[in-house]
Order: sequence, then structure tokens, then C-alpha cells
Amino acid sequence: MSEFAKYFDFNATAPIAEAARNAWLETSVEHWHNPSSLYREAGAARMRLEECRESLADALGIEEPERVVFTSGATEANNAVVRYLADRTEGGLAVSPVEHPCVDAAVKREFLPERVLEIPVEPQTGAIDFSALETWIRLDEVAAVSLMAANNETGILYPWREAAALCREHGVLFHTDAAQWIGKMPAEGLGECDFVTGSSHKFGGGKGVGFLVLPEEGKADDFRGLAGGPQEDGRRAGTENLPGVAAMVAALSERQDARLAGIESARGSDRDCFETTLSGEIGTVSLGASGPRLWNTSMFVLPHTKNLKWLTRLSARGFSISTGSACSAGRGNPSKVMAAMGLDFERMGRVVRVSGGWDTTSDDWAALAAAFGEVDAELKNQ
Amino acid sequence: MSEFAKYFDFNATAPIAEAARNAWLETSVEHWHNPSSLYREAGAARMRLEECRESLADALGIEEPERVVFTSGATEANNAVVRYLADRTEGGLAVSPVEHPCVDAAVKREFLPERVLEIPVEPQTGAIDFSALETWIRLDEVAAVSLMAANNETGILYPWREAAALCREHGVLFHTDAAQWIGKMPAEGLGECDFVTGSSHKFGGGKGVGFLVLPEEGKADDFRGLAGGPQEDGRRAGTENLPGVAAMVAALSERQDARLAGIESARGSDRDCFETTLSGEIGTVSLGASGPRLWNTSMFVLPHTKNLKWLTRLSARGFSISTGSACSAGRGNPSKVMAAMGLDFERMGRVVRVSGGWDTTSDDWAALAAAFGEVDAELKNQ
Repeated sequence: MSEFAKYFDFNATAPIAEAARNAWLETSVEHWHNPSSLYREAGAARMRLEECRESLADALGIEEPERVVFTSGATEANNAVVRYLADRTEGGLAVSPVEHPCVDAAVKREFLPERVLEIPVEPQTGAIDFSALETWIRLDEVAAVSLMAANNETGILYPWREAAALCREHGVLFHTDAAQWIGKMPAEGLGECDFVTGSSHKFGGGKGVGFLVLPEEGKADDFRGLAGGPQEDGRRAGTENLPGVAAMVAALSERQDARLAGIESARGSDRDCFETTLSGEIGTVSLGASGPRLWNTSMFVLPHTKNLKWLTRLSARGFSISTGSACSAGRGNPSKVMAAMGLDFERMGRVVRVSGGWDTTSDDWAALAAAFGEVDAELKNQ
Repeated sequence: MSEFAKYFDFNATAPIAEAARNAWLETSVEHWHNPSSLYREAGAARMRLEECRESLADALGIEEPERVVFTSGATEANNAVVRYLADRTEGGLAVSPVEHPCVDAAVKREFLPERVLEIPVEPQTGAIDFSALETWIRLDEVAAVSLMAANNETGILYPWREAAALCREHGVLFHTDAAQWIGKMPAEGLGECDFVTGSSHKFGGGKGVGFLVLPEEGKADDFRGLAGGPQEDGRRAGTENLPGVAAMVAALSERQDARLAGIESARGSDRDCFETTLSGEIGTVSLGASGPRLWNTSMFVLPHTKNLKWLTRLSARGFSISTGSACSAGRGNPSKVMAAMGLDFERMGRVVRVSGGWDTTSDDWAALAAAFGEVDAELKNQ
């Protein structure tokens, strides 16, 4: 059994990695000075911050470290990008209906509805209609596109590389919310996107930190996130959170592309095996399983009984799973993602999300499957 | 000598308190789960978060903990309040010209210039013209007022209690940026303000965390900071940064009103003594010293030579001081605060800010004064 053997909610958050904790502690003690001050120790903190920016850019395969702006997380980054696109472009915004709420709600806040084009999603597979997006781009109907890299609920992967290339060719700004992608999937190619959002705690770097990759110089030089002091080259005001940033970078360096390659296929089979067992033994129906998905994620419809009853019984057995994204957990508001995938309200109430981690073993998955079997029997006999 | 005997830039940032570091570590290890998830461990994290909210409200003398929203810092909080006031009120905004850049720049971004009334400041003393503010409020010319509690550069205290009472009486929304006040001065009365901004790292709680106090229920129920998930009761989306919040609360509990009472008078005399020595021996001129100031802050005009040359020589001796706020340090842009205090460009280049901490001793201040004396002699002999 792995250290977090019964934790299956990695898409909600990951335990902080030891390297991240140590980096936080080290910088909190050694480099607590304000990186924007002018004396020697502040200069050392500033240097450490810029080293972190370079490491992060390297990990993402981005050649210009100055494209990286540190933020308090993906929510802040996505809010800022959406506002920038609303204020600084004049055309339409193409956006998928399966985006995270911090993109979706930001679009509703910042854009007039007539500027927003929703990319159609095929309910059975959860895939976007790429040809519709392509047509809008070719016909100049959109000035910007926002398409997530990997969905937080279903784990479905979206064709951000293809969308980025097409946007680049046609001078359309492209944003991808890669909060669930980064740390789980190879980062290669992210530099081709104009805007990329990442979240530290999703890959074990600790909470309250994230980043935003901005376009190359000349493309969005007037970008301003939070307004105030000249930190982050004027693109995000606020005293730099060096300990948080150092922790994030330390965690990410443990999730480099080379290390992820093996994980992807091995853990993907474990997850597939889990789904096969569950569908065979208790009749679950997986969502989005026909196309490419994150190797760690499984979302499915339970055969009977409200999902919360399953969750409580699994929790009593020590297993942590989710009814959907933690963001909307327990609020009773139907998930836009599930609606896009054609689920009616009744079935939505029977959906759970299971998401493993980098060290989750096949035994861990098997133990979870067995627990689902027990709960199934228990609930049927009520 | 105290532990940080030569550090005189506490207004830029404070070293993280041991209690804060321990709280961060404890919650990072014990409560790393997503507080918005639904299983047992997540519930424990949520409970810890709500305990933090209660402790913070207690420390601020606020009866309703639900008025407290956690943010990534004062910059985010101030940006959000300013945007809210711009979007949700229709009248004018009275704001002082000595606000922190994250209020000032946010006002420029969110408000049409014709809606902004700048409260006059008396250049000699740095005090605001309270009667002008009072007239606008009584004549219904403003819908909202933003007045900082203590200035980050000069340390001058502003009459936020009086302004809050007057605003309350006239149904005008009142915001105070208390980032420099909280942790240094008694919190009593902050609950009377509609919006209060605080910053964790200014009182030793660590970077990347802060808070915003919102009005009582019924007054700003439609407040939304970052858009996205329903965290913080829908008022600030983004996964809750429990370790950061716990660290902030631990630090603040060491700076309670009762403990601050003694510090204020003792440390204030140490600072006054430092100023008397410096003005007598090398001819510095203190700014804003005629009225109430933070007990730890001294801003003054040096008798000769650009401030950076002093700063470098002091840094070589191990002393950390600032040419102004860290936010604008080294950028060569004239400080709005200094301009409001009537300094010409040449004198601005000779200004430094010195800000001690809770444990700074009279010996520490004396050592700094002696170092200034040495640098004075050195620069004169060049």
C-alpha cells in the first residue's frame, strides 16, 4: 500500500510533497526578506525568486522565463486572463462548456453574452467539436479561445496543442487552463499557448500559489493582473510569495516529463482495470472513457442510490472520493460538465469522481474496488 | 541585541514568526485535504479553517466571523473592494492621495476619474483635511470612502475610526486598508468599518495570505472577489489555503491588543530618540512627526547625497532600510505619498524609511543611529 493508499481525490488537491515542504521552510527562514527591497538579503531573495522562475519555465519547456508570472493560484490566473481578453480584444471568445468554474464564472462576469461562442461538446464522449472551433477561427469570428487541457471532473483531455497551433496561425489569442494537466502529463508544447494557467497544490506544491504563462513579448505587453506595486514586472502586484513559489517549483521538479512517461501507462492501466471491475461487478458506467483521459481519473454513474450515501460509507472505511469537483461539492448545484455530457438530474446525483495519485498502486485501486463492492451490497440490503 | 537587530524594514515585510511557521507545518501535514471536499479528513480541514476565521474575528474585535474572507494578501483584497465599490455604487469615491499603490492603481483602473474625490492632505503634517471629507459625506457627494489606517511610508495614522463613524451615520460605505495597522496597533473598532484589509506577512504570518472584512449581512451581500467555485461562501473562489491562513492567525494571536499596549509607548520613545539623535547629529528632517504615527516607523530627508548611496553603505554594515515602500523601491518613480507631503524631486531622492519591529530594542536603534553617523562622515569625506 502506498502512503496515501486510500486517498482518491487528487484532482481536488494533492498532499504537499516533502521537497515542497522543505523548500517552503528553507526560504521562509533564509529568504523571508521582501524580494523587492534593495539591501543585500532582499537581493538574495530576489535571485532565488528568479531562479524559481527559470526552473518553472524549464519544467514547462518555455524558453523565456519572463513569460511566467506567479499568482495565488489558478483561480486568480484564470480570472485575470479572462478579464484581459474581455478588456483588450474586441471580437468573440470561444470557450468550452466544460471549463472549470473559475473560467466559466469569470467569462460570465467579464464578457457580454453576445461575445461568447460556446464550443459544442459531444455528450457521449465529452469531446469538443473541433471543426466548429476551426471554422470560427478561420472565419475570424473569434479573437480569443479558452480551452482547458484536462477536465477536473472527467479527466478528459482536450486538443489544446491543435487549438494552440491553429490560433497561432490565425493570430487568435489562445488560453489553456492546464491546472489538472501540469504535473500529471508531459508539459511539452505548453509554450506554444499564449496563456497557460497552473496550480501548485494540484501537483503537491502547496496551496495558495499558482502561475500564469503570458505570451511572448509584443503580444500582451499591457497585461496587468492585480493592480498596485511593480512586482512581477508590473504584471501582478503584491509582495512576492517566495516560500510558496519555491515549494511549487520543488514539487514540479519531481513531476518532470521523463518521470511521467512511465506513470501514465502503468497507472492508466490500473485505473482501467478498476473501471472494468466496477462495471462488471456492480454495473457502474464510466464517463468519457472512450477517448483520451488523465491516467488518474475515473468518473462514473453508480447503479443506484445517491452518491453522497456511497461517499459517506467509503469515508467510514477510510477512502476519500468526491461527488464531483471539490469546488461544487455539497452545494447541490448541477455540474455544467455533467450537463454537457448529457446527464439528467437524477443520474447526476449518482455520479462520483475517483482520482488517484502518482504513487497509487494497483493494490490501492483493487482495495477501492472491493470497498465499492461492500458498499454496494450494504446499500442494496437496506 | 534582538534577533533581527539590524533589520529596519518591517513595513516591507516581517520575518515569519515561529508560531506561524509551526502552524503552517502542522496544517500542511495534518490538514492538507481540500476543505471543500466531503469526506472526514476534509471536514476536519474545514473545521480548522472555520476556527481560524473565528480566531481572526476575535483578534479584530469583530463579532461575526462570517464577515471575514481570506485572500492572497492585501493587494488582492484592496483590488476587490475597489472594484466592488466601482461596480456596485453609483456616487463618488473619496480617497486619500497617500493610499498604497494597490488602492491607488485599482481606483485608476476601476473608476472614471470624475467619480473620484481626492481628500486634501496638509503637506507639512501629512494629515488629511477631515472637514473636506465631512462636507462631502454630509452633502451626499460620495457613496464610499477609502482611507488607510496607517501609512506604509511615513507611518502616519489616519482618523479611520472617526471616518467610519461618520460614514455609518450617513449610509456611506467605508473601507480602510489596515495592512500596516493590524498587528502593530490595537484592533479595537475595526469592526465598525464596512471593509477592512489586512496582510499576513506584515505582522509575521507569512507571505501570500491576507484577509478582507466585509460589512454585516445585508450591506454588501453581492460582494464577489475572485469568480469561480463557492469557497468562502461564494465571496472568494479558489481552494482555501488553510496552512497560510493558520500561519496568519497564529502570528496575529501574538500581536493582541493587550500585548501591543506596552510596545507602543516603549518602542515609540526609542524611535523618537533615534530621530532626535539623527536630526541633532547629521541634520535629518523627519516627515509626519508632528502628529500620531506608527510606533515603529521613521521617514526622513537626509542632509545630503542620494538615498541609495546611504542604503548601500548601511547594507554593507548589515542594516536593512528602505528608500520608501518596497513596492516602488528602485523604480525611480516618485512616491505619491512624498509628493502629497510637499517634497520636490530633489528631496525625494534623499528620503529613507526606517521601520523597526516588535522586539527592536533601544540599543538596536542606537546602533542604527551610529551607523548613519558613520555613513554621513564617509560620504562627506568623499
